Amino acid sequence: MSRVTARRRVVRLDGTEDAYGTEDTVVRRGGEEHMAAEEPLELRIGGHPFTVTMRTPGDDFDLVAGHLVAEGVLGAPSDVVRMKFCSADNGCSSTAYADGEASLAFADGDPLNIVDVTLAPGVELPEERLKRSSYVSSACGVCGKTSIDAVRSAVRWPVADDDVKVWPETLFTLPDRMREAQKVFAKTGGLHAAALFTADGELVCLREDVGRHNAVDKVLGWALREDRLPLRGHVLAVSGRASFELVQKAVAGGIPVLAAVSAPSSLAVSLAADSGLTLVGFLRGRTANVYCGAERVAG
Amino acid sequence: MSRVTARRRVVRLDGTEDAYGTEDTVVRRGGEEHMAAEEPLELRIGGHPFTVTMRTPGDDFDLVAGHLVAEGVLGAPSDVVRMKFCSADNGCSSTAYADGEASLAFADGDPLNIVDVTLAPGVELPEERLKRSSYVSSACGVCGKTSIDAVRSAVRWPVADDDVKVWPETLFTLPDRMREAQKVFAKTGGLHAAALFTADGELVCLREDVGRHNAVDKVLGWALREDRLPLRGHVLAVSGRASFELVQKAVAGGIPVLAAVSAPSSLAVSLAADSGLTLVGFLRGRTANVYCGAERVAG
Repeated sequence: MSRVTARRRVVRLDGTEDAYGTEDTVVRRGGEEHMAAEEPLELRIGGHPFTVTMRTPGDDFDLVAGHLVAEGVLGAPSDVVRMKFCSADNGCSSTAYADGEASLAFADGDPLNIVDVTLAPGVELPEERLKRSSYVSSACGVCGKTSIDAVRSAVRWPVADDDVKVWPETLFTLPDRMREAQKVFAKTGGLHAAALFTADGELVCLREDVGRHNAVDKVLGWALREDRLPLRGHVLAVSGRASFELVQKAVAGGIPVLAAVSAPSSLAVSLAADSGLTLVGFLRGRTANVYCGAERVAG
Repeated sequence: MSRVTARRRVVRLDGTEDAYGTEDTVVRRGGEEHMAAEEPLELRIGGHPFTVTMRTPGDDFDLVAGHLVAEGVLGAPSDVVRMKFCSADNGCSSTAYADGEASLAFADGDPLNIVDVTLAPGVELPEERLKRSSYVSSACGVCGKTSIDAVRSAVRWPVADDDVKVWPETLFTLPDRMREAQKVFAKTGGLHAAALFTADGELVCLREDVGRHNAVDKVLGWALREDRLPLRGHVLAVSGRASFELVQKAVAGGIPVLAAVSAPSSLAVSLAADSGLTLVGFLRGRTANVYCGAERVAG
């Protein structure tokens, strides 16, 4: 069973046969449509409610783990004692983090929108995170931080000294390789993707979500679980724009090259330059823009 | 002066003249590029740091006000005593909310990434927001809520009884009208837009941001400032997908019709159906999908 897509009834308006645009010739057809599933996921740390994010179900443990990697909390598989799906009253299911693909194995009716994380002794959330109170904006990964000084997470693995080289021809192939691997995308048109590649363009891990930041978190969480952090020598491709936060997440995973299909923001470029990350944008067809770190582009 | 776009140096890779894809014929050209500005905005309530969001500078007071409208905190201009830009040590500038367009009138070097809001007596944040601690995910407007029960904001103005009708021909014109009004978009390719229209397709308010949720908040904040809430009889068009949160924001503003250029998520459809909102997606050319509330589509 999968909750990655959901079916909904839809009324399709079609005016394509009415070149003159008179109102009474728009055809209406009833139908069904597959769409990206979006459900809230509540994250608890040691049984205490911590936050809720909206995500596409699937790879939930990786999402949670990757989020904590991006926040600088986790760096190795041993930093997590366990993760479990819980019911609202904290009764936990037996589905545990070690199961790997457990997040896709849930049964109907399970309360699978709550994950409780037990951190290993010595692994702590930055004190500020515990005391801050916040309401939050969206499409934004620094939400919840109460001061601008706290925006930049601590960097565990510097990427500036990663001397990997990537050929332009390899970069040009990444969007197509990512789209080919996006089976769900073809079905819904509504999912963002993040794909981890080797410098030779070999796909290592692809994740999707209604939120592009979630897709990146799922990749980072996968890497943590596989004990592959830091991801030196890799390229992270993302389907949308490159925001400040995506750069931050790439750096948090030790990834030296971030390639986005669309535009970066100004702060994304600034952070990438400061961090020694190679930032590629507008990766379309056989063209691309390199905003910083061009020395990693071979040729 | 405008900080809506920023200029950055860029290396352009162009392999379009090399049909055979041999690595050594990719042309590199140095240049400059305009891109969407993205900067953190710290929100303080009564001098206390509350949260930080990443946004495109401009219309900052509207962004803050609209965010608090979407959260169900504000409903009328009188709910806000004042807003001011502040420095980090809480010394506030004289730029005040009543100035309206003040957010575009700042001078170089001003610490314009902090806004302090003074709420009117009796206007309170829901208690839960004050006590919760959270780190946050992104591209998600329910981040920061510590329980799933808290996801749905209180609805101040029901939209179910709004019997406005919109012709399909009017819907079909909205994306073009929105794009025509998006001068900045043409420059950067990196900004999301939210546009408020009358049911006849007349543009009322357009706002842009690197985050599409911020663009909607800026529209809601404008409407609050203009004392136009609730926005009965209006249509809100958005440039990207329709997420749960965008539906929530439309409902919070009393807007009965939300039209998105791209796909909705499953939860967006569910919330729209529950709220009595008309949700239109895949609004492209002369076709569109109506996911619920089709009775408002005339003809």
